[in-house]
Amino acid sequence: MGWDNTFSKRLAARDLTVGVIGLGYVGLPTALGFLDAGFSVRGVDVTQRVISALEAGQNPGDDPQHDDIIPSSQSDSWKVSTNSADLVPDCDVILVTVPTPVTEERLPDLKYVASAGAAVFDAVAKNSGTIVVLESTVYPGVTREIWSPLLEAAGLVEGEDVHLAYCPERFVPGDEEHGVRQVARVVGAPNKEVGEGLRDLYDTLTTGGVTYVGALEVAEAAKVVENVQRDLNIALVNELARIFPVLGIDVEEVLDAAATKWNFHRYRPGVGVGGHCIPVDPYYLIEKARAAGAPVELITSARAVNRAMPENVAKDMATILNGHELSISDSNILLLGWSYKAGIGDPRETPAEPLAVALGAMGATVQTFDPLVDDRLFPTDLATLVRAEDDISPFDIAILVTAHDEVIGMDWAKLSEKSNQPIIYDGRRVLNVEMLESLGWCVYLLGAPL
Amino acid sequence: MGWDNTFSKRLAARDLTVGVIGLGYVGLPTALGFLDAGFSVRGVDVTQRVISALEAGQNPGDDPQHDDIIPSSQSDSWKVSTNSADLVPDCDVILVTVPTPVTEERLPDLKYVASAGAAVFDAVAKNSGTIVVLESTVYPGVTREIWSPLLEAAGLVEGEDVHLAYCPERFVPGDEEHGVRQVARVVGAPNKEVGEGLRDLYDTLTTGGVTYVGALEVAEAAKVVENVQRDLNIALVNELARIFPVLGIDVEEVLDAAATKWNFHRYRPGVGVGGHCIPVDPYYLIEKARAAGAPVELITSARAVNRAMPENVAKDMATILNGHELSISDSNILLLGWSYKAGIGDPRETPAEPLAVALGAMGATVQTFDPLVDDRLFPTDLATLVRAEDDISPFDIAILVTAHDEVIGMDWAKLSEKSNQPIIYDGRRVLNVEMLESLGWCVYLLGAPL
Repeated sequence: MGWDNTFSKRLAARDLTVGVIGLGYVGLPTALGFLDAGFSVRGVDVTQRVISALEAGQNPGDDPQHDDIIPSSQSDSWKVSTNSADLVPDCDVILVTVPTPVTEERLPDLKYVASAGAAVFDAVAKNSGTIVVLESTVYPGVTREIWSPLLEAAGLVEGEDVHLAYCPERFVPGDEEHGVRQVARVVGAPNKEVGEGLRDLYDTLTTGGVTYVGALEVAEAAKVVENVQRDLNIALVNELARIFPVLGIDVEEVLDAAATKWNFHRYRPGVGVGGHCIPVDPYYLIEKARAAGAPVELITSARAVNRAMPENVAKDMATILNGHELSISDSNILLLGWSYKAGIGDPRETPAEPLAVALGAMGATVQTFDPLVDDRLFPTDLATLVRAEDDISPFDIAILVTAHDEVIGMDWAKLSEKSNQPIIYDGRRVLNVEMLESLGWCVYLLGAPL
Repeated sequence: MGWDNTFSKRLAARDLTVGVIGLGYVGLPTALGFLDAGFSVRGVDVTQRVISALEAGQNPGDDPQHDDIIPSSQSDSWKVSTNSADLVPDCDVILVTVPTPVTEERLPDLKYVASAGAAVFDAVAKNSGTIVVLESTVYPGVTREIWSPLLEAAGLVEGEDVHLAYCPERFVPGDEEHGVRQVARVVGAPNKEVGEGLRDLYDTLTTGGVTYVGALEVAEAAKVVENVQRDLNIALVNELARIFPVLGIDVEEVLDAAATKWNFHRYRPGVGVGGHCIPVDPYYLIEKARAAGAPVELITSARAVNRAMPENVAKDMATILNGHELSISDSNILLLGWSYKAGIGDPRETPAEPLAVALGAMGATVQTFDPLVDDRLFPTDLATLVRAEDDISPFDIAILVTAHDEVIGMDWAKLSEKSNQPIIYDGRRVLNVEMLESLGWCVYLLGAPL
């Protein structure tokens, strides 16, 4: 596509082809959304399983919302492939939605951004004016740092053969009000016409409003800052959940009282922060700022507080069991829920994992009840996964880790029979204490005096 | 008053006398509010100047809202005195609204809470069932720790002769929407009937709603947590204001972009945090938590970030002046605004003060233009105070410290004539850059690349 003022006409006529690279929990609903909005869509994923499922008209992921809207067959308006080269030449706009995890050393791992970019630029035609948009979370500067050398290596000239842009995904897994069709978006692009064209394009995807914010780096920074702010506010309530019990006070009573103030932000303390964004994105900014010699003490401190929560909870377990004349070293501990948040099966960066590691290091045997978690991603070396309530083995203490409906609505009377003295620790502050106590449970609460 | 179920009847009939100890920016509007709500009011302040003004029907403070509503003379329903003993015996409920500053070592300074409490308890009659409410910001446990020994020393029995409660003030100086008649309140009291009675009493003062939250300590903690959260969120944007310029990015563009997200909290970076609450209250919690062995790294880190801002700005001034071939060591620096926030005259804990100290230590001469600041509280050893634009002396760089309307609306053309090369640093991000540049100003912005 030559980049000129025909873009808006072609947009209005839905005469544009949108490519999506990476068909995971962001890319797939995005591809289906643009298809529904009337555009031709090309989807690429390097995982054969994903493409095979889509070719068969089946849902490759775990979000049931997609079951009925995946096209049953390929057509001019819907094609999928594992090979970028097959489909990229069709596309006017290409959205790259690949994962950006952190390495074991908590440094940004940009290999998927690089490999997807290289594959795209190798397939983009010279003079096509293709727009390539990164949606993955990065730190300010990444889109250009990683992609400029790759597009040059492919013989392309930025601003002529290809235009770069950044439009961070803001999808909230498991939250139907904040899916790709609802969330507000921001677009950063060095070329204003490209930025405004993308704004209008994304406006057909979402009802939440789209803002062109100028430079690529501003949009990159905005995404990181959103998650850093969330991490910080959660870290504060987690730090308070460590302070107030020592003073004989339940942190939740305090936060409820403070929340009567008009400008208070109500966050909830918990076993820890998980998922693909909040526990990951801050490291991207920390790394970039450190390298530039800028101060990051506060952001680093927040990350440390949240990261310490599973270990803190493990220590609480030893204290509680000790108070019941039990030893953690030969205990059986039941984790209720393993996914990083309620209602979904995603275990990425779940605090359940470091919790299980800490408990295991103290000598405990760990079993997990979670009917939702993706069992392909469950670390069977750390814990036994139990899918049905009946299959739960006898235990010494239960820890509510993830507030799945299937956990909150368990048969608590029946569960209590699997323990000599049923003890539970509510790590999410969601349980009905009175009800549990009436069934004979001894209940402990995260953030309340033990 | 015997504490019984007649309280609600007497409340409904406005047959209660409310005492207010400390008639400052919280106590005076509270006293006037209860008077307006139909109660008899007794006001005590240890400062003779305050009482003399009130006796003459004059406003002792700087809030013009009070000018017309201060009673012109004393009566059965309105009496003021410097002496608690004169008025406390009249009162059914006594509200203590004295300052709780921090010492030079940033430890809580509770001497006013103690002296006001002692004076009240000495004057409370045995068997009176007087309710004594602390409104000053403290840390959890203070009301009982400080007052219980004092009331015992006065021969009173808590829960019989006297009831204790805590109801934090949440007044926002200069914000007409969040005055004592509008803000939501919380009440903590060990006696539920007292707590609910106070809830109903405060409900006549404010339209914002009043919640009885149970224990004294919960209400005490809530107030501190509100300000700690605010301090933390401001510290985050201040840290970001240090990071992004190093990366070539303007922090305000990033925050504007992030603020398009539905759950982002928009705070603004600045020269520093001032006032009687946010830069003070966190130390109360830090001290209490440290003493109890609880972790406070995050809260402490936030405080450090905000406290460092004036020093950071001073360093920026040296850099900027250097870039203009000027040296800070023999410069004249004009601070625009001194009060800790816009629209008020209160200089307590203003960041202007450590800024002036840092600039002075670098050899600069400092003058301040502020038509609002209370000149009795202005430290003339640190800077010259100028009240009228015409009296401003020639300067090398101006720093916008406080966004008073009188500052933003200055005659910028005229001001520019007082400098060879007019340079301004906007420490609050409130100035119209284009307008200033058109007048020949060289403009620098806090949080943007210099």
